[in-house]
Amino acid sequence: MIPTSDFLTKKRTGGRHTPEEICSFIKAYVSGEVADYQMSAWLMAVCINGLDPDETVALTEAMIASGETIDLSTLPGITIDKHSTGGVGDKTTLVLGPLLASAGLTMAKMSGRGLGITGGTLDKLESIPGFSTQLTKEQFLAQAASIGCVLAGHTGNLVPADKKIYALRDVTATVECISLIASSVMSKKIACGASTILLDVKAGSGAFMKDIESARKLARTMIEIGNMMGRKTIAAITGMEQPLGLAVGNSIEVAESIETLRGGGPSDLHELCIELGALLLEVTGLSESHAAAKERLEGLIASGAALEKFREVISAQGGDTRVLDDPALLPQVAYSRPILAGSSGFIQSVNAYAIGRAAGMLGAGRQRKEDTIDPSSGVVLKKKAGDSVEVGEEVAVLLYNNAACVESAAEAVSSACKIGPDTPAVSPLVLETLGF
Amino acid sequence: MIPTSDFLTKKRTGGRHTPEEICSFIKAYVSGEVADYQMSAWLMAVCINGLDPDETVALTEAMIASGETIDLSTLPGITIDKHSTGGVGDKTTLVLGPLLASAGLTMAKMSGRGLGITGGTLDKLESIPGFSTQLTKEQFLAQAASIGCVLAGHTGNLVPADKKIYALRDVTATVECISLIASSVMSKKIACGASTILLDVKAGSGAFMKDIESARKLARTMIEIGNMMGRKTIAAITGMEQPLGLAVGNSIEVAESIETLRGGGPSDLHELCIELGALLLEVTGLSESHAAAKERLEGLIASGAALEKFREVISAQGGDTRVLDDPALLPQVAYSRPILAGSSGFIQSVNAYAIGRAAGMLGAGRQRKEDTIDPSSGVVLKKKAGDSVEVGEEVAVLLYNNAACVESAAEAVSSACKIGPDTPAVSPLVLETLGF
Repeated sequence: MIPTSDFLTKKRTGGRHTPEEICSFIKAYVSGEVADYQMSAWLMAVCINGLDPDETVALTEAMIASGETIDLSTLPGITIDKHSTGGVGDKTTLVLGPLLASAGLTMAKMSGRGLGITGGTLDKLESIPGFSTQLTKEQFLAQAASIGCVLAGHTGNLVPADKKIYALRDVTATVECISLIASSVMSKKIACGASTILLDVKAGSGAFMKDIESARKLARTMIEIGNMMGRKTIAAITGMEQPLGLAVGNSIEVAESIETLRGGGPSDLHELCIELGALLLEVTGLSESHAAAKERLEGLIASGAALEKFREVISAQGGDTRVLDDPALLPQVAYSRPILAGSSGFIQSVNAYAIGRAAGMLGAGRQRKEDTIDPSSGVVLKKKAGDSVEVGEEVAVLLYNNAACVESAAEAVSSACKIGPDTPAVSPLVLETLGF
Repeated sequence: MIPTSDFLTKKRTGGRHTPEEICSFIKAYVSGEVADYQMSAWLMAVCINGLDPDETVALTEAMIASGETIDLSTLPGITIDKHSTGGVGDKTTLVLGPLLASAGLTMAKMSGRGLGITGGTLDKLESIPGFSTQLTKEQFLAQAASIGCVLAGHTGNLVPADKKIYALRDVTATVECISLIASSVMSKKIACGASTILLDVKAGSGAFMKDIESARKLARTMIEIGNMMGRKTIAAITGMEQPLGLAVGNSIEVAESIETLRGGGPSDLHELCIELGALLLEVTGLSESHAAAKERLEGLIASGAALEKFREVISAQGGDTRVLDDPALLPQVAYSRPILAGSSGFIQSVNAYAIGRAAGMLGAGRQRKEDTIDPSSGVVLKKKAGDSVEVGEEVAVLLYNNAACVESAAEAVSSACKIGPDTPAVSPLVLETLGF
């Protein structure tokens, strides 16, 4: 085994690690033999000098080997997983899970409880009264087998190395590194066992990747890892200039997902779910063309099959299925406050990051792990980029229970919605697909 | 104050810190607000992306500000300090201190107890029975004022930031960085208060800087810091291909120093002490030329004045001055073992690093802070590069009390002394002087 100082020197001087070296370093870190200050020095060297594809795969493998993995090979049908690099108002998992299960695919999905400006998938689902995301491995597999869709938190000790490394990256300015992001995401996806993985890489002001070039680089790196590790991996780069859909919060995003599964909902959310879903039907061979796949998914929504599948999921996970017919049974806020247009014209842009932050201020997100989320608060947009607006008309509504930050949130939303005289150019939702 | 993560991001992305930023980061590290894992990430970023001269000076200032400083301005005469970047068999401080004090300069020198393959100046001095290196600040200043020479350990809490950072660099592969080395050395030199500083930067296989280019770069960086901080700073780059002198150990190096102060001793040690001493007499204006300075120093040795000054130093610090007349009173080993030449010819080279390691194996150095040093063990060379040798003739003698590693040490010394048929080219002792 290479001494830690030689390992660190190698990356400091731009050298290349062997898979064995990386494996023993990660193992020694998880066991506590390598200290945090040594790992952070290495992470910094990696951020600056990079990891090549083989090193990135080796790191991913080493992280997976640090914990348990889920074996989905005994499940009927093709198992799929889906990962979004994180956007504001992104509730596609809630729609895609039931929708694709109703099409015959098996989405056995585990989500982490991300620390972001707004809640994660688990937080959204938990706003459904009674819904449990804490399943045993047996419950998880049984539900995947019987219903074709299960949406839960991690069962067991998956990729503990990533957990430990991520916490360290967060406080050492080593988050922004393609190889580290890719290996972190892919180690979890691969440990979760699906044979086909769709990556939704967000690009734009509301996303971690601000431009399409870095989004493309991240997507390619993740695809490479997935394919080298025997998983069919595809990616879509999708725009995140403005929030996806109209609702940004937890229970309000569930309500919007239900509406979308009913065939309604905001057009961008509907379109993205159909596009991403069609990519998975295509790549798994369940549909012979993208057009056929889209048609099939539209049909499953129109027939009510997709909504019915969501009912089965909610029921299996202990949730109150009456919310599907009466969204008012979801948690509701005590107060609301409209945000009015200061001038007439067209909405030029709606800054996704600012809207997300405002929702967070109102209680929809958490700053620290131990913070509790307010399931009902958030921001509902009334206008999106390209819409015309009259002075004094509502552009958004703040929903809240705690008025502490409402002024700052109002100001943030107000300045996030830019109004101008001309129709703006609105970029397409799916910018690029990769991995086909 | 800039948040730690922004500070780290700045250096990660190749940015430039302001002095204020560096100052608050170092302060926050010493206070424990910045964690080791954050400091090590920064150190790694610095190793890769560098610090410019202003940043390096700011780091040096911030480290000095972390602790106490010594004020030597009340002392009579010109105060000088001298630092060697570390070589094998380097006992020049033991000779230069008394020699220059006898010439009228004041050398009030504090040494750290370096963690190297062989002992440091303090370890060597402590091999003199009774000699104390632990003085109070008052004792230290009083002796400097009355004798013009004091050789002690650090009094007070000098540059605690460097202590903490150095310990971290040692275990995170961030030692080898010119800016970090320079600011570490210079922060201590400047905190120690002398107005004139001579840096002996070693270059060669037995030194930290293996080639003259990096030695020159380190020397220039240190001179720049010294001058920017108001200290007259000069440097000599001196060769460290083979050990300096013949003795590599602790008491045996003291004996060699005494011999040199008597006008004997190995020619390279004598020459280097005269050269370095002359540089200081010149730069402080005590001699008008290098030649005049050398002549003066030779005279002080010949007259016995330099040796007499060493007697005063030993006496003032509680040591047994009889060792000056009878070196057998210094600690002696129980066993010795000659290393014989395997062939006839000329000594081509004597690998300094290997000899240092062999002396360390025999007990002359410490691996960990808590190790104790054997004051009497070590290696005495009988031949140096360029000397002719007959097969079976002694090239070196191992001196030891503990036979545990004697076989490995013998092997190391044997292969360190290369013998060949032709007279080798031996490079000069002083390769370059800078800062005049």
